[in-house]
Amino acid sequence: MAVIRKHRGHFLEDFVPGDVYRHKGGKTVTEGLFALFTDFSMTTNPLSKNARYAQAYGWKGLVVPPGLVMLIVFSQSVEDVSENARANLEYIDMRFGVPVYLGDTLEAQTRVLGVKSSSSNPMLGVVHVQTTGKNQHGEVVLTFQRKVQVWKRDRAAEVHEAEVAPEHVEASLVLPPYDPARRYGDLAHLTNDDSYLEDFVPGDVIEHSRGRVVTTDHVMLTGILDNTSQVHCNQWMVSQDPERFVGGQLIVFGGIPFTLCLGISSADVGDNSLGDIRYATGRHSAPVFAGDTVFASTEIRGITDFPGRPDLGVLAATLRGHKFVKKGDAVERVEIFHLEREIAVKRRSHYTG
Amino acid sequence: MAVIRKHRGHFLEDFVPGDVYRHKGGKTVTEGLFALFTDFSMTTNPLSKNARYAQAYGWKGLVVPPGLVMLIVFSQSVEDVSENARANLEYIDMRFGVPVYLGDTLEAQTRVLGVKSSSSNPMLGVVHVQTTGKNQHGEVVLTFQRKVQVWKRDRAAEVHEAEVAPEHVEASLVLPPYDPARRYGDLAHLTNDDSYLEDFVPGDVIEHSRGRVVTTDHVMLTGILDNTSQVHCNQWMVSQDPERFVGGQLIVFGGIPFTLCLGISSADVGDNSLGDIRYATGRHSAPVFAGDTVFASTEIRGITDFPGRPDLGVLAATLRGHKFVKKGDAVERVEIFHLEREIAVKRRSHYTG
Amino acid sequence: MAVIRKHRGHFLEDFVPGDVYRHKGGKTVTEGLFALFTDFSMTTNPLSKNARYAQAYGWKGLVVPPGLVMLIVFSQSVEDVSENARANLEYIDMRFGVPVYLGDTLEAQTRVLGVKSSSSNPMLGVVHVQTTGKNQHGEVVLTFQRKVQVWKRDRAAEVHEAEVAPEHVEASLVLPPYDPARRYGDLAHLTNDDSYLEDFVPGDVIEHSRGRVVTTDHVMLTGILDNTSQVHCNQWMVSQDPERFVGGQLIVFGGIPFTLCLGISSADVGDNSLGDIRYATGRHSAPVFAGDTVFASTEIRGITDFPGRPDLGVLAATLRGHKFVKKGDAVERVEIFHLEREIAVKRRSHYTG
Repeated sequence: MAVIRKHRGHFLEDFVPGDVYRHKGGKTVTEGLFALFTDFSMTTNPLSKNARYAQAYGWKGLVVPPGLVMLIVFSQSVEDVSENARANLEYIDMRFGVPVYLGDTLEAQTRVLGVKSSSSNPMLGVVHVQTTGKNQHGEVVLTFQRKVQVWKRDRAAEVHEAEVAPEHVEASLVLPPYDPARRYGDLAHLTNDDSYLEDFVPGDVIEHSRGRVVTTDHVMLTGILDNTSQVHCNQWMVSQDPERFVGGQLIVFGGIPFTLCLGISSADVGDNSLGDIRYATGRHSAPVFAGDTVFASTEIRGITDFPGRPDLGVLAATLRGHKFVKKGDAVERVEIFHLEREIAVKRRSHYTG
Repeated sequence: MAVIRKHRGHFLEDFVPGDVYRHKGGKTVTEGLFALFTDFSMTTNPLSKNARYAQAYGWKGLVVPPGLVMLIVFSQSVEDVSENARANLEYIDMRFGVPVYLGDTLEAQTRVLGVKSSSSNPMLGVVHVQTTGKNQHGEVVLTFQRKVQVWKRDRAAEVHEAEVAPEHVEASLVLPPYDPARRYGDLAHLTNDDSYLEDFVPGDVIEHSRGRVVTTDHVMLTGILDNTSQVHCNQWMVSQDPERFVGGQLIVFGGIPFTLCLGISSADVGDNSLGDIRYATGRHSAPVFAGDTVFASTEIRGITDFPGRPDLGVLAATLRGHKFVKKGDAVERVEIFHLEREIAVKRRSHYTG
Repeated sequence: MAVIRKHRGHFLEDFVPGDVYRHKGGKTVTEGLFALFTDFSMTTNPLSKNARYAQAYGWKGLVVPPGLVMLIVFSQSVEDVSENARANLEYIDMRFGVPVYLGDTLEAQTRVLGVKSSSSNPMLGVVHVQTTGKNQHGEVVLTFQRKVQVWKRDRAAEVHEAEVAPEHVEASLVLPPYDPARRYGDLAHLTNDDSYLEDFVPGDVIEHSRGRVVTTDHVMLTGILDNTSQVHCNQWMVSQDPERFVGGQLIVFGGIPFTLCLGISSADVGDNSLGDIRYATGRHSAPVFAGDTVFASTEIRGITDFPGRPDLGVLAATLRGHKFVKKGDAVERVEIFHLEREIAVKRRSHYTG
């Protein structure tokens, strides 16, 4: 008889640049998952709330919002890539492809791009990966790179230090065509009238007025995403070792403030968007704990044409999340999230007539 | 470069009697939303739990319960009507129309009926509105009036004090016809056998035996309804100004105890109902906080015939919600909710043979 | 005018061996209910996560996992059997039948098998029942016996002490046939590669490495199951009588750790299972409270052939749940759950080619 304790997930020495992990599980987007995350996030874009609107615009039905697409694909990669991670350092070149609908099944795989040992801590290193999610037809819904700080299992093990080039993954936002016969103007009252492309001025910073506290529900929400990382849900483990685990508190899975910040910004920035195109870079700047209230702001960085679509423009913006922390009598605004995003925004000229 | 902070929602001086707001968003009733609220509420009516029963009675499928229809339509009106409110004063003449099914999309609009400044507080006033929700076919699912105490943005602004007549909105409970061939008796075991019309005696008060604590889940539930009012979810804001915000606690959205009281009363009163017809008046008498346990009682006020339906009667009842609060060594029963309701209840004579 | 307080559920003196209760309500499995419980449980079996996988294996779609089938059927029996119970003592001979799919409606009935007064407490006794759940086609999905310790209403009432034989209920796990043309190997990356039948050694004990804290969400989850037992949700009641109610704390509904333990063990034991066949016996050894972190282990007891299915074997295992409790400076491992299970596990030889 043996007592067996299997540790799931890879450690630093397991990663080999060029290796590909086909992730386990896969996930069908049920209406339950959709409702929990889409509505939880406070998104106001009717594409993800109102099937009549989504269909009138040419989609098959309710559109899974970008934050949830990201959460589903990302979470599938957690066991293989970051179950034994210390920190998620950066999202890079995250691009969206075909729309995701209720009932679609998403599966994901990850290519190891690079491995690097830490110069200061022999038990740590950085892994650079490229993850791609596809639907049941094999179409790409999302691809992104990320860098993660991962623990070693065995201090003496050799680390496969190298870097390979990312694979070319075709992923461009797929949208229904513009069709003046659709009478978009009849639906214009369903979105804000001050968030069309014409309303944005590069350099402006919009402080989104709403905030949202994170409750202990984050544990359930993270589990529902199949995110298996123990620092989000194993209270006993973190209580036993408060020095290693930020004072013995469960850290909220970064995907929760990620999707909350997208949602909080939605009324001001995303309401008249037809989709998120690309996140050039993103990072979690500080941890979030249950009890923190999440706020967000958006800096407008630029506006460009959307190739082949005179009805749309590309809004480049920086989305920042923050919380307030008391330091004695003072209150400090702490940045928790940073995301450079490009989104496809409707022109008032084409959608309100 | 400008720093912009958009405040959503109208203030007292923005309301003009006769104006109509077509609310943003709209909402498709997913199975996720349905499960969270229908089951959360502890409702026992099989019309909203058992598709086999609902179809055997002539509905297309599971019927969205009245409490959830109300929550969905009401929440759509929050940004325009009450995001800047101090208190929701009264629901008036709330009437239900066609049944709501899974997959239906509900949209809502609100007519301003009256505006009145407060005589005691120059920053407050009362707004009287009429809100109507329709499904994707344009059929009315719910209409109601409400009175809300709303803040002014600018003390010096002129208030449009006036009152206009409510619009006539046709909304009567639509039910499948009674058909003796349906063999209702074969399903009679699925409901309580002591809640048919014949079982109620005007004057009786039923103290419903079950209670239910409200946890911090209320924040998630409220968000999922798209209710954007900050007093329910912005812990930082209320913590910073405890004098303004009832001691620094998040107030539970009134819709939560509303639907909980309906559910708690359901086994005794609503189990053999085919639908709620009308709520003549309703109000939240005291705030509810996370940690409070909600209880309910029903006073039977009267029984009348249901025109054209000898199989049914109309039960008029007052549903009251309460909680218990310790005052030193004493325990006080505090009313939190009051609703005068008329519901369509089956006669035992027609449904148990 | 009368003040009425109806107590739902039966007391010890109400149970008569041989009586059958057809339970109220029934429950349609919505995608909302499915997502909350399937994903909450941390199950990793793609049959319940990935519709593409389930269909490729011959099921109609996503398969409701055994833990949720049990929760739905069990919860329907709570009002009649255990709303007035002190403790749920034992599950006996729990067997699964046809698969349960999204949209199915489950209804349940319970036969009273035995009643026995307590020799030590005149207000208590044990009731032995047999509960069977069927889908809308009348097919058995689950049948089980259980023993419950139930309160008397009236100390002087006569108790119907007797024992009758259980009814024969045909319930054997129904599986799609094995078909080599299905190319199972193409999907092998979706499950763990170390949990095929060939990987298990009788006598081994697997300590599952993941744990999960139970938050106050348990109240919402229990309500969503229609479990009406007040000890799980009526905080006021238990706070008023801490001596009767384990120190004034809400006890977590046993179904929550039941399904969590199944889920926590899933990556190591259940990932390559095609279904749970039978639970010979099960019990909750200690209560769970909000804040406890649930862990699990599995002892492999035996491996046998699955009659008529050379592609499968039957794995007999004991699933144990535990939590850690501090006693002064010491930490005690407390067993909370014990389940003897037989599951149908794939042979690597047949599924990875």
